[in-house]
Amino acid sequence: MSANTFGNIFRVTTFGESHGPAMGCVIDGCPSGLELSVTDIETDLKRRRPSREYGSRDENDIPEILSGIYEGKTLGSPIAIIVRNINQKSSDYNELKDIYRPGHADYTWEKKYGIRDHRGGGRSSGRETLCRVAAGAVAKKLLSLHGITIKAHSEKNIDIEKLSGTEDSAGGIISCLITGVPTGLGEPVFDKLDARLASAILSIGACKGIEFGAGFAAAEMPGSVNNDEPDISGGGKFATNNCGGILGGISSGQDIIFRAVFKPTPSIKKPQKAYDKDGNIKEISINGRHDVCIVPRAVPVVEAMAALVLADFLLLSRSSKI
Amino acid sequence: MSANTFGNIFRVTTFGESHGPAMGCVIDGCPSGLELSVTDIETDLKRRRPSREYGSRDENDIPEILSGIYEGKTLGSPIAIIVRNINQKSSDYNELKDIYRPGHADYTWEKKYGIRDHRGGGRSSGRETLCRVAAGAVAKKLLSLHGITIKAHSEKNIDIEKLSGTEDSAGGIISCLITGVPTGLGEPVFDKLDARLASAILSIGACKGIEFGAGFAAAEMPGSVNNDEPDISGGGKFATNNCGGILGGISSGQDIIFRAVFKPTPSIKKPQKAYDKDGNIKEISINGRHDVCIVPRAVPVVEAMAALVLADFLLLSRSSKI
Amino acid sequence: MSANTFGNIFRVTTFGESHGPAMGCVIDGCPSGLELSVTDIETDLKRRRPSREYGSRDENDIPEILSGIYEGKTLGSPIAIIVRNINQKSSDYNELKDIYRPGHADYTWEKKYGIRDHRGGGRSSGRETLCRVAAGAVAKKLLSLHGITIKAHSEKNIDIEKLSGTEDSAGGIISCLITGVPTGLGEPVFDKLDARLASAILSIGACKGIEFGAGFAAAEMPGSVNNDEPDISGGGKFATNNCGGILGGISSGQDIIFRAVFKPTPSIKKPQKAYDKDGNIKEISINGRHDVCIVPRAVPVVEAMAALVLADFLLLSRSSKI
Amino acid sequence: MSANTFGNIFRVTTFGESHGPAMGCVIDGCPSGLELSVTDIETDLKRRRPSREYGSRDENDIPEILSGIYEGKTLGSPIAIIVRNINQKSSDYNELKDIYRPGHADYTWEKKYGIRDHRGGGRSSGRETLCRVAAGAVAKKLLSLHGITIKAHSEKNIDIEKLSGTEDSAGGIISCLITGVPTGLGEPVFDKLDARLASAILSIGACKGIEFGAGFAAAEMPGSVNNDEPDISGGGKFATNNCGGILGGISSGQDIIFRAVFKPTPSIKKPQKAYDKDGNIKEISINGRHDVCIVPRAVPVVEAMAALVLADFLLLSRSSKI
Repeated sequence: MSANTFGNIFRVTTFGESHGPAMGCVIDGCPSGLELSVTDIETDLKRRRPSREYGSRDENDIPEILSGIYEGKTLGSPIAIIVRNINQKSSDYNELKDIYRPGHADYTWEKKYGIRDHRGGGRSSGRETLCRVAAGAVAKKLLSLHGITIKAHSEKNIDIEKLSGTEDSAGGIISCLITGVPTGLGEPVFDKLDARLASAILSIGACKGIEFGAGFAAAEMPGSVNNDEPDISGGGKFATNNCGGILGGISSGQDIIFRAVFKPTPSIKKPQKAYDKDGNIKEISINGRHDVCIVPRAVPVVEAMAALVLADFLLLSRSSKI
Repeated sequence: MSANTFGNIFRVTTFGESHGPAMGCVIDGCPSGLELSVTDIETDLKRRRPSREYGSRDENDIPEILSGIYEGKTLGSPIAIIVRNINQKSSDYNELKDIYRPGHADYTWEKKYGIRDHRGGGRSSGRETLCRVAAGAVAKKLLSLHGITIKAHSEKNIDIEKLSGTEDSAGGIISCLITGVPTGLGEPVFDKLDARLASAILSIGACKGIEFGAGFAAAEMPGSVNNDEPDISGGGKFATNNCGGILGGISSGQDIIFRAVFKPTPSIKKPQKAYDKDGNIKEISINGRHDVCIVPRAVPVVEAMAALVLADFLLLSRSSKI
Repeated sequence: MSANTFGNIFRVTTFGESHGPAMGCVIDGCPSGLELSVTDIETDLKRRRPSREYGSRDENDIPEILSGIYEGKTLGSPIAIIVRNINQKSSDYNELKDIYRPGHADYTWEKKYGIRDHRGGGRSSGRETLCRVAAGAVAKKLLSLHGITIKAHSEKNIDIEKLSGTEDSAGGIISCLITGVPTGLGEPVFDKLDARLASAILSIGACKGIEFGAGFAAAEMPGSVNNDEPDISGGGKFATNNCGGILGGISSGQDIIFRAVFKPTPSIKKPQKAYDKDGNIKEISINGRHDVCIVPRAVPVVEAMAALVLADFLLLSRSSKI
Repeated sequence: MSANTFGNIFRVTTFGESHGPAMGCVIDGCPSGLELSVTDIETDLKRRRPSREYGSRDENDIPEILSGIYEGKTLGSPIAIIVRNINQKSSDYNELKDIYRPGHADYTWEKKYGIRDHRGGGRSSGRETLCRVAAGAVAKKLLSLHGITIKAHSEKNIDIEKLSGTEDSAGGIISCLITGVPTGLGEPVFDKLDARLASAILSIGACKGIEFGAGFAAAEMPGSVNNDEPDISGGGKFATNNCGGILGGISSGQDIIFRAVFKPTPSIKKPQKAYDKDGNIKEISINGRHDVCIVPRAVPVVEAMAALVLADFLLLSRSSKI
């Protein structure tokens, strides 16, 4: 299947455990002739990096491009990017080896595979998202040639000082706005643009929901309000955008708008009960360098995943007509 | 790609336009030896059929199984099912040939493909979902062997008489509960169980959002509340289910819970403004046999799509371990 | 996976057992705007039909297009085509129910699935290839717009009268010539044009080998002879075509040339030994309407499979460059 | 699509240009719990390494496993392996920058992508196969647990001294024998075991043909000879193996046997004519460290590709039956 691969034409495969030798991705299907350098990737990686105020592991990630570029341009061959894992403190996790942290994938992973790299969450670590951001930076570069821009932001500021006192964590909501999308991206049945975006965003750890345009509020609207009528100025413009820029799974030429919810970081210092590997219930207090709120760091990840979806559909749209 | 195909091992391909000769699906990858008859399919198709009170086209759909079954059992070969389209009234749509109904895929489809079957919405018709329901019935049969059940329902009753007076339409929310899911279904990165379910449900026309477990409410919860702690009775049970039965993209053995929002039917009698194919703004009033609210009919479609996802992951899980 | 689906962008899914209700295919990913009628499909289906001299089941196959066409053109949605199975004589196969015919898939199918439709070979029947021919006809229509033509032929005539006297059967070799192929089709690593063609042709039952250009003879050539040097007339032309029109998996603009071998029909009247389902060895003499040589009927199947590969790569090539 | 990815459940993605920073692969879908170390990979990489007698670049390849292993066992997550490119002599290729070597992908690659890394053949280099060998070593380890072994060999010894005198090169034929294959691997229609093996082997650069069992000789056999009858000793054994261990695309439990032809190395010192990028015809004599015959080095590559196919089908076969 495609457990660690995303996309059809523009495809990304990621790999790496949090405390293993390296994280990385392979981008296949990027067209040839795209100007690309390591700087394009570093910019977004920096946005994903923890700020001091949210206080967690200092991930000074240095990407290395291993293939796919020649004289500053893409060759049409796979672009492999790796980031070495440094500054791990695996011993921090020793006491978590035999316990399943609440809200984490520890329990489910072990039940599925019968083996688990507990150090830093292993493959389930949020650190996996740096590969998405690296790949997304390439997709964004391609999209920018077509005038498509993607901007996400956290809907509210987290009052961190207040939160710190509680030894607890917070979640939040990320909004995303995509502009410059041509009409006609997305496929009409199973590969609807919103279906693929939903899959992309929900594949980010901690994301628990998504809505497009009016979203859940549409349940309370009559059709006459929810339908987006033409703008009186005409020209293919619409007066409202309750559909979020997507009709029947295909982009309408309006801005694409969606919101995604992220649950609070499950790793908290506050004592919690948890199962251990023998099925006993233990009390744990999770120390270590964890984000109190991962929402700000998830912003470039949301953008990256949206970029991967759009780049893929952009290329696929070239074969819609004879 | 897979515009009209869904799934990896258990795969469904659908086809058909609303006013063409037939709708149908091909289910590939269903294991051999499953008892299956046309009755299994008819049961769910009836649930999708319009009730008189919501008043729309009388779709007395009779499925025919063309392949894949021998002496009452699946062969392991593709199961093709077709339903003939009868009782169409294509002339009802003559006046819509050159106009793009607000909230429909008319506009986006024509921009994408340059050609459109306007009769009954063509491929974008809600009628396409009967193929999903037929395929979902096969998936449910397979899941039932493993004790997995899927039940969706509409969260509120629509007051139709009141609505009818307004020449308008209504949307709603469907909740879905999946029980008996073993721990370990879903893949940890891009093919998370929630990501695939989101893709499946958002691929249903009119769906504009989805949330799992606590969903959007999780944005306001501290981690200590959102985390699901062990139930004091132990045994792998949990005291709460804010995660909706999925941790790190993998089923936890708890019930899977999600909610999806469906926008109001865009076809309304109430006059609306719309673009015609020359870019002019016209006023239209849509007559014909349209559902005032499609939510009740979408219930078995939601179940079907969830069943397709689970059947696929169930088969895939057989190769997780050596 | 894709057991019954072939292709990536231009994709075909087939279904049907020889003595079931119908055979059929679903073509997904065909671009919109292609003129297509049932006549396009019938022409190639007739070429696949048994001639009287090779004497077998009279398959007067009448294709019905169920979807994907509107006013004589493709919509961009899936094109489903079915052919009803008529004129079966299932009782002819009663005595084969519990025996595995040598050279057939009877034994392997039953070991794999534990259940088998023995009538006419079930899903393993050569009749399955009519779906490939129907789909190939659509692909050929698309290719013809780009000046690509595909012509296969049997390399020798089978002396049937002589063969009939022996109650035996014959195999043969089919050559295929593809002209008008633009430079640049095929992908450089795993999806080489020759790799995909090999997969396509070897997926035809009874095919046991394939070679491109000089093929097996290249084992005896020095590089200086095997390499195709420029023609003295220049213009991108070459003096020889030992590469068969493909270099590094990518079309060179030369004609594509390959040869495929087909084994003799395994169903023969001459008595043979065979395993029955209990592992005993029995003697059987296979009567019924079997081709003495399937090679002539395989010619349009080879063309169809080649067409599917080229149509797919033609569409994919649209995303090679930015 | 999957230009640089091979497989469905057990999937391999490769990357790297001959003179870029590194070659590598990502193996996704390998089940958890498989014992694996870098030694397993080095063994086969050494077999692919040029011997002195065939005289070419000294590729002392040192693989590094970046992910997917924990305490000596596979985690179920992607296994990434890289090999740094060292000892390149890119300047050797300066004079080939603007000329298309006969028999190489230079010409077709540039036509397809409009940009090319000419150094050492770039992505089209035979060096790409080391990634296949690395991935194949993992597949072989998995297969060995199930008693499946794969052994290929070159059918004749190349008389190199004689060849060297000619400034020319030689091709050859590789035979492959796979033992211990259970009955039931392979899928009956498009994903026949032989079709997938053909695709796998033809995807190796320089391979120009493949045949299974009796192969091309089957064209001259009557059915009564070609059919494999039961061995008189019974027990599911057969007296002959003309089918090459595959019937109807599914393994029969017999040994799998195939032969593949490899063309002579196109890089020769003997002067040849070639097109340059302006379409002029030039004479070139290719110096540098090229294999006079690549056949011996292709032996482990053939084994690796066969192993990838079998591992994939082995896992897929787990979902054949309910």
